[in-house]
Amino acid sequence: MRLAAVTGLVLAAPAIAGAAAAAEGHSRFGPTLFALALLVGAAKAGGLAAERFRQPAVLGELLVGISVSALWPAVLGGEGIAFVRSDPALLFLAQIGVLILLFDVGLEADLRALARVGLSSLLVASIGIVVPIALGWGAAAWLLPKSPTIAHVFVGAALSATSVGITARVLKDLGVTKTREAQIILGAAVLDDILGLIVLAVVTAIAAAGAAGLALWTVAGILVRAVLFLGAAAVAGHFLSSRIIRLAARTNRPETILVIGLALCFSLAYAAELIGLADIIGAFAAGLLLDPYGRGVRPGQEAATLAELIHPLSSLFVPLFFVLMGIQVHVGSVGTLSAFAFAVVLTLGALVGKAACALGVGAGTNRLAIGIGMIPRGEVGLIFAGIGSSLIVDGQPLLPQSLFSAIVVMVLVTTLVTPVGLRWAFARRAAKGRG
Amino acid sequence: MRLAAVTGLVLAAPAIAGAAAAAEGHSRFGPTLFALALLVGAAKAGGLAAERFRQPAVLGELLVGISVSALWPAVLGGEGIAFVRSDPALLFLAQIGVLILLFDVGLEADLRALARVGLSSLLVASIGIVVPIALGWGAAAWLLPKSPTIAHVFVGAALSATSVGITARVLKDLGVTKTREAQIILGAAVLDDILGLIVLAVVTAIAAAGAAGLALWTVAGILVRAVLFLGAAAVAGHFLSSRIIRLAARTNRPETILVIGLALCFSLAYAAELIGLADIIGAFAAGLLLDPYGRGVRPGQEAATLAELIHPLSSLFVPLFFVLMGIQVHVGSVGTLSAFAFAVVLTLGALVGKAACALGVGAGTNRLAIGIGMIPRGEVGLIFAGIGSSLIVDGQPLLPQSLFSAIVVMVLVTTLVTPVGLRWAFARRAAKGRG
Repeated sequence: MRLAAVTGLVLAAPAIAGAAAAAEGHSRFGPTLFALALLVGAAKAGGLAAERFRQPAVLGELLVGISVSALWPAVLGGEGIAFVRSDPALLFLAQIGVLILLFDVGLEADLRALARVGLSSLLVASIGIVVPIALGWGAAAWLLPKSPTIAHVFVGAALSATSVGITARVLKDLGVTKTREAQIILGAAVLDDILGLIVLAVVTAIAAAGAAGLALWTVAGILVRAVLFLGAAAVAGHFLSSRIIRLAARTNRPETILVIGLALCFSLAYAAELIGLADIIGAFAAGLLLDPYGRGVRPGQEAATLAELIHPLSSLFVPLFFVLMGIQVHVGSVGTLSAFAFAVVLTLGALVGKAACALGVGAGTNRLAIGIGMIPRGEVGLIFAGIGSSLIVDGQPLLPQSLFSAIVVMVLVTTLVTPVGLRWAFARRAAKGRG
Repeated sequence: MRLAAVTGLVLAAPAIAGAAAAAEGHSRFGPTLFALALLVGAAKAGGLAAERFRQPAVLGELLVGISVSALWPAVLGGEGIAFVRSDPALLFLAQIGVLILLFDVGLEADLRALARVGLSSLLVASIGIVVPIALGWGAAAWLLPKSPTIAHVFVGAALSATSVGITARVLKDLGVTKTREAQIILGAAVLDDILGLIVLAVVTAIAAAGAAGLALWTVAGILVRAVLFLGAAAVAGHFLSSRIIRLAARTNRPETILVIGLALCFSLAYAAELIGLADIIGAFAAGLLLDPYGRGVRPGQEAATLAELIHPLSSLFVPLFFVLMGIQVHVGSVGTLSAFAFAVVLTLGALVGKAACALGVGAGTNRLAIGIGMIPRGEVGLIFAGIGSSLIVDGQPLLPQSLFSAIVVMVLVTTLVTPVGLRWAFARRAAKGRG
């Protein structure tokens, strides 16, 4: 039924576009290709510039997107930017970027290491999920009392997910990956990813079901489905992972494992959708299935790992996602007072909410480092914002443009603050240790 | 004007699809993702199976596509296959596959080596272009007298382009890459690619301009534009190539050159479209620009080459193109007597047309090997067929389904025949040499 509806829609499009293109003697992909070239190039330039200032690449990619959004209409008119914002082929490639990103996170997640740090991480992660959701929900309800409750919950959920990548990168730069603090942060971050995805599953399903879906049993049903889906992927991974890799190795072609991996990633993304979860949960599950203990999948001793094979793909499509996220920000909308207030309040909520994680560990540990290490919201917060603004409830996007922009600002600030803060927290401790 | 038209079309699509998807609580890419996973997986399996039988992978990918096309409607109904045949996101990814393929061919092309084999190759290549066009044109005019002349020319053009990859692979397998015959074949194949692209530029432009475009001065105009475009790319490559690579090397990131390369590939594809040429000409020009002498672009001594970085991308998207080509074949249409006759006549024309290349070299050379080595039509023939069937002239596809299928059969047969024939030709010569 749903497939049929989609089929009907997409069948119509190429026929018209094809006829129009043929009439003028051009294939229909030229403008999309050019936009793709510009966006990927600009995103890469932004990412490299950010790294030159010792900032995460995602920051540069977002800022490039926001700059394009701000400057394009003035320079080139509104038509081109409208095309870039809504071209289905570009959006599809960006979606492939997010799926590859989450697949990669799933590949790197190590369920055994998680079990080792265990309780401390679980406590830190739980605080880091619950407090930001509560703060975000409360702030949204206070600032936008007329929006539906589900919109408030969505804002809270968008504040909840820590971005492992940014913290891991900074810890590595500081050479403190082996400290107890780093282990707890990284363990909590993996749990945070999983819990965040479950929260996403719950809120998107509720949003789709409408207000009626706020019944507790619906929430419980989605929760159970998400947990079972991820659990099944982990169990399947324990038993099947090495068999799949051996099978791929028998073809003597490195790209076989790449094709198997991506086919699994896209198939489980579809499967997750079919049971009412977000597609990125399926992508994460595929990564978990192929490499449940984060050892690095490689068919043969000297072969490249799957993560290495995916790198060229992700270096192309992941920045595309972030630059398009930046472009979706209507800069004018942040200029209004209310939108600016949203941004300030949400950012404060995001900072305080994760700093509360420090309360999850004993006095012997560097609490400041843990509180700051959990702060960055990167890709996952943006994914929440993207899904929230694409969900239509009662004919309106669930997240209005002002909230979407506020979430992007929150992501920018938390990402900016973390590297500086973490360096300071570890340096302070070291100074104390010497004192 | 054109951009505006396309923008309008694509703007409408996501709004509708988005609303439909949101109403049912799903993102709109699930079915496309699943189809992508299935197609890429099936194509890879077919390619690996073909290689196990010492056949080129493209053969297996095409056959898998044709099998899917034949079996799917009976097993799963017509709706799914219609979706796969026309989903714009899948078609866009397949188009990216072709562009990457031609970019790669451009990277490998060595203009200096070409100058060395010089006259012999030029003679062989010219015969190999002119004779098949004449035979294909004649055959189409004989079999389909009512079709417009441009359709006849298009069939001839589709017979003209040799597929370098298949012959190069077989020559390597036989260990005869250094022989004079191999050098002439490979040189002629590069020229053949360039001449084939120019022929494509001319015929697509004429088809788009309609019957009036058959005026000689139009043909000359396109010819001049295509030659200037490729010439400009070669000259720019001579002066800029090493500077671009040094620039990329300064970022210390291997993916920088990948992003630059693909951005250039997609931009020149768009530029080629804008001046009325096919987008693949732009992709080939981008490869020529970055590496005019086929030396292998690498930013730094131990860095991976651009071709290596592209490999994961091409191993995903190129098979997608071929499997979709196979799926476009309506198997029932080859079953009719007239379509079967087309296939037989075109295949004979293709074989005889390239065998004529043997006349281009002196008696001292292994003429048989050269005649057979020029036979395979792979990707380029299929690209011609794909463009021909997507061009709409007077409300009808330029190439009817029966001719499209006949061209695919021709590609299959010429590809199958070459490895066997080349082995025989070199073995025969070796036996004579001993006798």
